[in-house]
Amino acid sequence: MEKPAETSYPLHDPLQRRWSPRAFADRPIADKQLTILFEAARWASSCFNEQPWQFIVATKSTPQEYERMLSCLVEGNQKWAKLAPVLMLTVARSTFDHNGKANPHAWHDVGLAVGNLVIQATTLGLSLHQMAGILPDRIREVYGMPQGFDPVAALALGFAGDPTLLPEELAQREQATRTRKPLWEFVFSGQWGQPATMVK
Amino acid sequence: MEKPAETSYPLHDPLQRRWSPRAFADRPIADKQLTILFEAARWASSCFNEQPWQFIVATKSTPQEYERMLSCLVEGNQKWAKLAPVLMLTVARSTFDHNGKANPHAWHDVGLAVGNLVIQATTLGLSLHQMAGILPDRIREVYGMPQGFDPVAALALGFAGDPTLLPEELAQREQATRTRKPLWEFVFSGQWGQPATMVK
Repeated sequence: MEKPAETSYPLHDPLQRRWSPRAFADRPIADKQLTILFEAARWASSCFNEQPWQFIVATKSTPQEYERMLSCLVEGNQKWAKLAPVLMLTVARSTFDHNGKANPHAWHDVGLAVGNLVIQATTLGLSLHQMAGILPDRIREVYGMPQGFDPVAALALGFAGDPTLLPEELAQREQATRTRKPLWEFVFSGQWGQPATMVK
Repeated sequence: MEKPAETSYPLHDPLQRRWSPRAFADRPIADKQLTILFEAARWASSCFNEQPWQFIVATKSTPQEYERMLSCLVEGNQKWAKLAPVLMLTVARSTFDHNGKANPHAWHDVGLAVGNLVIQATTLGLSLHQMAGILPDRIREVYGMPQGFDPVAALALGFAGDPTLLPEELAQREQATRTRKPLWEFVFSGQWGQPATMVK
């Protein structure tokens, strides 16, 4: 199943094709491919080049580890994420390495790194669904995470699968039209709320 | 000048080529191209599909607007960013539209949207340099930004230019080797700090 973005202008192919399925095929991902995804994340830009991103990864090839990570998601996400052959957690380092002060851009820069990972995944034929619905306290405990790091999100990763694999309600959501705000609602110039010329 | 990422595995081309120059050529960007960049940002994923990103844009075709935006950067950034034909500010909506509560993923999701924009820009031959060094209070005042929105970062955008356009110290930095942490420092499995098999 494909759900390309319906744009007025053609986008770079993986940006156009990327979407977030909940149904994943029962097909593993090679370790080599995962390494390439992390390499893509690695080269994102970040404030002071601090690279405040960390990833914890679990695959179905180690079922016990996989189950531990699945248990760190809210129940509603476990229902479908359990189809994905790979789960990941993203974690932000909340302070700067170079001076120990708070890094307000830590989560933003995790977003940049994950953005790279998502695009690389799409070019490899993989799909990815991000979840804010995680259990941060449980993650800290399960993985022995030290102070100064914040669990940010989880990712389900795999080859997109048949929506009929999902519970009925989710199967319907999988088919729903993708929506986004129009450009003039969020691209301004001169004054807050004033649409920029090129998006009017 | 090009500075591709030095990776052990080939990445998707624009991920490999992306880097953050400070020298920009004196060459404008067509409005049509800017529109495509915002369209790319638009289709990023976000928590509850809230799309908490906003952009304020200024180009050298409106010099007064451009100068106003330049004055929202810290001095050290103004020195080189003034070469770029386009400046942007990114802004996060700090609360959810759907329930008014704080959105902890707002900055993260701005990062995802900017990540899309950067990749689209790279495929169009453009370069982009993000800056955390902005003056948030001045931005709020200059643009009449309401409560509930946070200035996040600025972007300088254009065609990469000759490093000799820069003050000497910055010209030297422009030539410096790009560095990143090794994968095993930030990709874990099983336990915090334990490198995952595929990155050992």
